[in-house]
Amino acid sequence: MSVAKEGIPLLLHPDNWIRLEQNGVALLDRRQLPRKVTFLRCRDYEEVSKAIEDMVVQGAGDLAITAGYGLLLTAMQARECRKESQGQALRQAASRLRQTRPTGSYLFDMLDNLLGQGLEALERGQEAAEAIQSALRQAINSKDELARKTGEHAETLLEDGDLLMTHCFAGAGLLYMLKFAQEKGKSLKAIATETRPYLQGQRLTSFSINQLGIPVTLITDGMAAYCMSRGMVQKVFAAADRIAMDGSVANKVGTFQLALAAHFHGIPFYILGYRGPARDTPRGEDIPIEERNPEEVLSFGGERIAADGVAGYYPAFDVTPPRLISGIVTNRGIFPAHLIREYYKVG
Amino acid sequence: MSVAKEGIPLLLHPDNWIRLEQNGVALLDRRQLPRKVTFLRCRDYEEVSKAIEDMVVQGAGDLAITAGYGLLLTAMQARECRKESQGQALRQAASRLRQTRPTGSYLFDMLDNLLGQGLEALERGQEAAEAIQSALRQAINSKDELARKTGEHAETLLEDGDLLMTHCFAGAGLLYMLKFAQEKGKSLKAIATETRPYLQGQRLTSFSINQLGIPVTLITDGMAAYCMSRGMVQKVFAAADRIAMDGSVANKVGTFQLALAAHFHGIPFYILGYRGPARDTPRGEDIPIEERNPEEVLSFGGERIAADGVAGYYPAFDVTPPRLISGIVTNRGIFPAHLIREYYKVG
Repeated sequence: MSVAKEGIPLLLHPDNWIRLEQNGVALLDRRQLPRKVTFLRCRDYEEVSKAIEDMVVQGAGDLAITAGYGLLLTAMQARECRKESQGQALRQAASRLRQTRPTGSYLFDMLDNLLGQGLEALERGQEAAEAIQSALRQAINSKDELARKTGEHAETLLEDGDLLMTHCFAGAGLLYMLKFAQEKGKSLKAIATETRPYLQGQRLTSFSINQLGIPVTLITDGMAAYCMSRGMVQKVFAAADRIAMDGSVANKVGTFQLALAAHFHGIPFYILGYRGPARDTPRGEDIPIEERNPEEVLSFGGERIAADGVAGYYPAFDVTPPRLISGIVTNRGIFPAHLIREYYKVG
Repeated sequence: MSVAKEGIPLLLHPDNWIRLEQNGVALLDRRQLPRKVTFLRCRDYEEVSKAIEDMVVQGAGDLAITAGYGLLLTAMQARECRKESQGQALRQAASRLRQTRPTGSYLFDMLDNLLGQGLEALERGQEAAEAIQSALRQAINSKDELARKTGEHAETLLEDGDLLMTHCFAGAGLLYMLKFAQEKGKSLKAIATETRPYLQGQRLTSFSINQLGIPVTLITDGMAAYCMSRGMVQKVFAAADRIAMDGSVANKVGTFQLALAAHFHGIPFYILGYRGPARDTPRGEDIPIEERNPEEVLSFGGERIAADGVAGYYPAFDVTPPRLISGIVTNRGIFPAHLIREYYKVG
């Protein structure tokens, strides 16, 4: 397994945080970052599914790749079975893996693609595992390429001396953007929101930006507007779990409030949109918003704080309307949110 | 000491959470709520000051009363000293207590008042402690009266069936408002934001609203706009640590973002302003914003999470501009924020 090098964030490339092992998948446990770099062993697609549900991995693109490994594992384990049983096993695994997280759509596309490749290989009398492994490797490479291209375009938005604010973990595109800006000699600073309840900003983002050697300051989610009001922030960057064709963006809950605060203060608010909008999702209202276990809101550091009788509510994402977004950066360029449909029309 | 009765929240009245003891002050430790109802013993004004700094008590009005007890304690302990030494001790204690928290202005007014009463009594050859105790009792009664009146006016804003959202702990005025609405037969629900990093929403607000028997749901600070976008919220209520004469409101950090989200969704956003604006503070920019120890942001449940090298920033308050505020509710009525100067002119 590649080990993160000096100045190269651990989370920049999937090969740093997931790999196939003998009879299992080793997955970096992000919940333990940055204090511990430990890998969780998943022995079958059910354990991979649980790991995705339990936030061992997160982010629409990264959890799609993880699900891909879950399907690959199934194909390898079913290798010796009859063709029909192999197809059956793959369909069952894909169906379980699809049920892990509803909001991002890469997961579904990834599984459709890999399952299709596997079943076609079986049809042709070839190894499903080999076909899936090759398609997964291609998907990983293409994801890295997407992140690089997105980072390249986003980098052009940064000026020397900028302080940028970001929410949750905006993925490899954010890290490439920062890396490319550094290589061009731009001096940057960052503020990361902690991103309750899972603290991705604290665990992943500030950790990764710090690994790049860029000064990064952590705030709680409620402090963003104050920092903006004091002139501390030049630009805001967030990612997207799903972009609708109308330019609405579903991303980790709290993103919408950051966009509102940026809009009020006239600060550009950009979305790192990687491969662009989901063509099967016309409007923001069509994006299913995952609601997670309220216990995660009622507890704090594993300890139940709230009084008995108090309920909790945990929508994991929110939807930012296009008029609050200054631009969506994809691998193809920078697009006005409300016009993105024009650039990504079918056909 | 009074014990909270069924349906009467513990934090409704100061006599429930602070009292004079032999040679000390017993102060409810709010950091332990709602799991434990424990009292911290403060033996002198220095320990009272530390308790205020360490958030054993919070809220502009409540910490002012606590500081008043610190001064009373000093007067009682210095009772046997010469008049000059007594005056000296009171001045020293007041000066230390003033340094605990800079943003709210009740603290300064309370100490000015009690110190003045104490020194005048000494001048007249009377007991400083007695004068301070009587002035403090008057201040507590008048604070309760302020909260009741504020609650009475605010209650008129509520309609049967409303779900109201609130941030941090908006104090006894919020609880009176809810109590009066209940007595009028209005059925209400509430959403409380957890209010990182000290979780006053989780520890104090949801606990207190639940004690009133009103259904209350806890969310993290980043979820407010999403809840509003789904039509879940009819009104928002927050308190004020200080109101400037231009109608700007300093309150627990995160309030500004709630106001922005409410404004975007056309949801009324009210401030429980108790005694109204601070006449010596012309504009929002004139309110000093306390910056607390960044360690409180970098840690979570007492455990350091953030990677080494990551900085933290912790402004404890933010300032909401008057144009985002639908009304400021004081003991005298409900006022448009941008006109409050007219109603509270000197003279």
